[in-house]
Amino acid sequence: MKQKNIVAPALGSIRVTDPLFAHYVAIVADKLIPYQWEVLNDRVEGIEKSCCVRNFRVAAGELPGIHEGMVFSDTDVYKWLETLAFCLEQGKAQAFEEQADELIALIGRAQEADGYLNTYFSVNCPERKWTDFAEGHELYSAGHLLEAAVAYTRATGKTALLQIACRFADLITEKFRPDGPLADACPGHQEIELALMKLYRLTGEKRYAETARHFLSVRGNSSGFLMDNLRRQGKDRIFPEFADYDEKYAQSHCPPVEQTTAEGHAVRAMYMFSAMADVAAEFGDEAMADACFRLWKNVTEKRMYITGGIGSSGHLERFTADYDLPNDSMYCESCASVGLMMFGQRMAALTGNAAYCDAVERALCNTVLAGISAEGDRYFYVNPLEVWPENCLPSTSMAHVKSVRQPWFGCACCPPNIARTLASLGQYIYAQDARSIYINQLLSSSLHTEVRGTSASLELASSILKDGKASVTVISDGRQPFTLRIRIPPYLKDPVFSLCGKQIAPVIEKGYAVVAISQEGKQNLEISGSVQPCWVAANRNVRADAGKIALMFGPYVYCLEETDNGSGLPFVFVSPSASVRQEAPAEGLPGSLPVLAFAGKHLSSGIETDLYASPAFSFTDAELKAVPYALWCNRTPGEMAVWLRALLPDPGKTEV
Amino acid sequence: MKQKNIVAPALGSIRVTDPLFAHYVAIVADKLIPYQWEVLNDRVEGIEKSCCVRNFRVAAGELPGIHEGMVFSDTDVYKWLETLAFCLEQGKAQAFEEQADELIALIGRAQEADGYLNTYFSVNCPERKWTDFAEGHELYSAGHLLEAAVAYTRATGKTALLQIACRFADLITEKFRPDGPLADACPGHQEIELALMKLYRLTGEKRYAETARHFLSVRGNSSGFLMDNLRRQGKDRIFPEFADYDEKYAQSHCPPVEQTTAEGHAVRAMYMFSAMADVAAEFGDEAMADACFRLWKNVTEKRMYITGGIGSSGHLERFTADYDLPNDSMYCESCASVGLMMFGQRMAALTGNAAYCDAVERALCNTVLAGISAEGDRYFYVNPLEVWPENCLPSTSMAHVKSVRQPWFGCACCPPNIARTLASLGQYIYAQDARSIYINQLLSSSLHTEVRGTSASLELASSILKDGKASVTVISDGRQPFTLRIRIPPYLKDPVFSLCGKQIAPVIEKGYAVVAISQEGKQNLEISGSVQPCWVAANRNVRADAGKIALMFGPYVYCLEETDNGSGLPFVFVSPSASVRQEAPAEGLPGSLPVLAFAGKHLSSGIETDLYASPAFSFTDAELKAVPYALWCNRTPGEMAVWLRALLPDPGKTEV
Repeated sequence: MKQKNIVAPALGSIRVTDPLFAHYVAIVADKLIPYQWEVLNDRVEGIEKSCCVRNFRVAAGELPGIHEGMVFSDTDVYKWLETLAFCLEQGKAQAFEEQADELIALIGRAQEADGYLNTYFSVNCPERKWTDFAEGHELYSAGHLLEAAVAYTRATGKTALLQIACRFADLITEKFRPDGPLADACPGHQEIELALMKLYRLTGEKRYAETARHFLSVRGNSSGFLMDNLRRQGKDRIFPEFADYDEKYAQSHCPPVEQTTAEGHAVRAMYMFSAMADVAAEFGDEAMADACFRLWKNVTEKRMYITGGIGSSGHLERFTADYDLPNDSMYCESCASVGLMMFGQRMAALTGNAAYCDAVERALCNTVLAGISAEGDRYFYVNPLEVWPENCLPSTSMAHVKSVRQPWFGCACCPPNIARTLASLGQYIYAQDARSIYINQLLSSSLHTEVRGTSASLELASSILKDGKASVTVISDGRQPFTLRIRIPPYLKDPVFSLCGKQIAPVIEKGYAVVAISQEGKQNLEISGSVQPCWVAANRNVRADAGKIALMFGPYVYCLEETDNGSGLPFVFVSPSASVRQEAPAEGLPGSLPVLAFAGKHLSSGIETDLYASPAFSFTDAELKAVPYALWCNRTPGEMAVWLRALLPDPGKTEV
Repeated sequence: MKQKNIVAPALGSIRVTDPLFAHYVAIVADKLIPYQWEVLNDRVEGIEKSCCVRNFRVAAGELPGIHEGMVFSDTDVYKWLETLAFCLEQGKAQAFEEQADELIALIGRAQEADGYLNTYFSVNCPERKWTDFAEGHELYSAGHLLEAAVAYTRATGKTALLQIACRFADLITEKFRPDGPLADACPGHQEIELALMKLYRLTGEKRYAETARHFLSVRGNSSGFLMDNLRRQGKDRIFPEFADYDEKYAQSHCPPVEQTTAEGHAVRAMYMFSAMADVAAEFGDEAMADACFRLWKNVTEKRMYITGGIGSSGHLERFTADYDLPNDSMYCESCASVGLMMFGQRMAALTGNAAYCDAVERALCNTVLAGISAEGDRYFYVNPLEVWPENCLPSTSMAHVKSVRQPWFGCACCPPNIARTLASLGQYIYAQDARSIYINQLLSSSLHTEVRGTSASLELASSILKDGKASVTVISDGRQPFTLRIRIPPYLKDPVFSLCGKQIAPVIEKGYAVVAISQEGKQNLEISGSVQPCWVAANRNVRADAGKIALMFGPYVYCLEETDNGSGLPFVFVSPSASVRQEAPAEGLPGSLPVLAFAGKHLSSGIETDLYASPAFSFTDAELKAVPYALWCNRTPGEMAVWLRALLPDPGKTEV
């Protein structure tokens, strides 16, 4: 396997100007960082106390008491630091750097002499360290520490957090190495693997990469390791409500390299698959790469929602069966779609193929954005495609589905995960290798980088949803020629290219239009095509979407909301050939995506009082307005639906 | 409120001859009683040990060890005894009477000196008696003891079990009376209330009825009683997986008399509502009767499946919101529909109104029968209306749904509950009061009884689904005139009546055709009408059934099975005006209900490989065959669907 060495440029070299995304990127630095800081310090009224920072103080011996909150509460601190690092790297949120340094010092004081760092186990049950692999989340928490350290070091050049991370990583490497005392153990929640790979890439310490690979190679080997582990905890289980935890839940039913379908907890799966892609690339491991190809195909061709959401089972937040994609009761955790972006980015890096960016874009532009409110102060954990607020009742099968975003969560993985993704959005837009700059997402932005020793500045201005046009202005110092690889997304039809005003016909390679940049100075590449709103149906095997259609505009899935269309959205019918008008953006929504308007029908069964009776179906006309799913629930809350029933053709004819 | 005093005749006086039901009634005595006896004694290979009888031996000090199995495992023994009693009363299963007497003696030896009887608490944690009201099921288990004792005494005249029951009931009455030590306590799972009413009716001891009423009057008063109780148990909770137990779950969110919607665990709700109807009748309690009317209306007009199933949430087996009736993920526990039959029977007795028997019939002919295999050896606990076996996966949101009946359950409430219902089927067919005999279900059967001191023999021969005809042959000794009240079910159209060959036009009162029987000797009442298969839709507010239709024939809901129709049932479309042919009964299914055949279409989205793409919908013709839902999964297992997508009219027109 030929290594690609495709990497993301430094975030500090990228500026996002796309009107929608710039809004969210700004929010992270301006609102999320300060808000989450208050949450971590338990200073926000009306939400469950996180105890996050307090736990470090207790672990450092500076406060009395025990660890409180979730067993993995440390990760919220680490993800905040990672997000802040991304902001700092881009010259934002600098007011928090001092507080971050103090926090890092505190984290250092909470670290034990041997490098161990986990406020739950250190404080509450030191005798149980490295015993509760299934539920303890020690390695998961460690992984987020490592990620934060890598980001903070990259952003600030300061190494205090990196030293803490390396000390812990060294301890882990020692404990879990093939001839170490815990050689057979694997984490219940993956994350350490991809984090060790990041730490290796920063430090060059190969043992970190080897430990990551080791975790992937022992997993699923010793059959029943995690279940045995759980049974040993007995009455002292941390999460007794997960009585039916199983090996598939944690992707330990067989070795990762042999896995063929995405199983179990979707976030765990994505984090593991991401690490597998990293390891495949680093070690040139063909078998591991093949597993990644299989698993990617399974996820994106059989187990992914049109919104890039994954995890069809509300219970245990997990994958189920091929084509099982219920629209109202699933999980589709924001974090899982963040994980899908991570996996896709690594697959693109592994293969140099733009097709992987399709799903990254799908997840980003729909589920990940939907996970956060336009104001940045409310979050979805679960991202359904159809919501009827009245049946989202506590203590029922639908309890996990919230019909409005929440200010925070007891298990608060999603808000910081969304934040760190948006704060580092640039890494999903641009990539580069020895000879090329990759534009993976046509989002207006700029990049200043160096390729082949040649300095290159890019200005990407995209208005493809407005007029089908995108332009890339490149300024090169001309020392060496390099190529620009621009992903042409599948929804951009009939693209025509011109360079400095002259039409060109660039090679399209692995989904990228390849344009050579060899001159010094400014050059302008224009892409002109067409993007139209279009109706989409699901594969013939998707039962939940039988006879239904959804509306897309570019990468954006649209949905109906009650505030625009009244209630009873499941009774809305639309023709798959209904023409769609673009209207002005809805008031109060960020960005400039249009409202899409079309004519449809409301169905009534004609049964008003009885619960069951003879059908007397009738249709009434309905003027319908759809908004981007990414922006739903930013106005008056209510019902929402992505998939609409299709008005089907007279079955005498055979096709629409 | 005028008391009706409508009661069921003795089961020994009723014989069921309807071909379908006679099959199941016979199975109970011939197969279930012996099979369940083996299960109770842990002699069946391949299923979880019940430990039921063994626990009594341990409690009696005759075996070492502790109580094993469910905390309420005693109830399986009691329900078996109750079912056996019903059989014995009808001269069946007599081979088991000796074993039953021995078992009763064992139960007596397991009873404590003060009357207390519960093998779990006696053996495992006597110190926790009467402390765990939310989860301990002590009063629930006691209730089933009382019901068994009443039935066994009625059937055999033997009083050993009754004495045991009365001793325990006396203890309960003492403990929980308004000035007793547990005056504020209420059971987490209702059952004791209706059982005490039964015991009162047999013994005439009013204090039992008063205790039943007391339990209903304290429930929901002391806010948070059950939740406080649960919190006290802390880590020692019996069911830690039910972390989100709430007061509504146990119908203790407000006093029963004030409740307006059916909430919480459906079986608990039905058992409580049944007791409320008993108490309303016994005490002439208008406010309680009003609550019953409200709750009945709410259940049957807004929260009941077309199959008579109830409990829309798979999690916690509970009610959700009005018109929230998902077809694949709900609970619809067999026991809940048994409970609906019990509630309906009591409402009919309270009011003398036949309309309550509609829902009884719906539950009986669909969910309750579906709960048991044609051979009587397998059971459904959950009764979905749509099944795709591939997504009924363990450890997911769909884990509770089994696509095939199971030989037994760790929590084995349903099999014995179905058994006792079928064994006592006669009580749902006939009732009587001072002046009338009620025929509540047009099921072929006979009755010998006495009304107004007049002996009356009825022979009911119904073939309404074949030819619309039913005849009732009455032989009276003519001492006093009495009335025959025959429920005319809503699906029997245009009934014409003739008495001894002469057409008559009986008064229709509260859904009953009222015919006076005043002569001595034999008289023959003929009813002739028409019952046709018909398409049914759901109320315009039922989202899960939007644009769907179901097929019914009389009280029987029909369904498509994969074995007859191939897979992909969610892609089947049928016109609401599709004509339906009756065909011969399917081979291997009991009774003589026809297969219903009709033409429909299969829809394809036209998308074969991609997960989402442009729709290219097409229909292909399909010849479809439906079988009674009651009998599904008795042949090759596979998919099943009750609700089918309707081929809707051209929306240019306004109605079908």
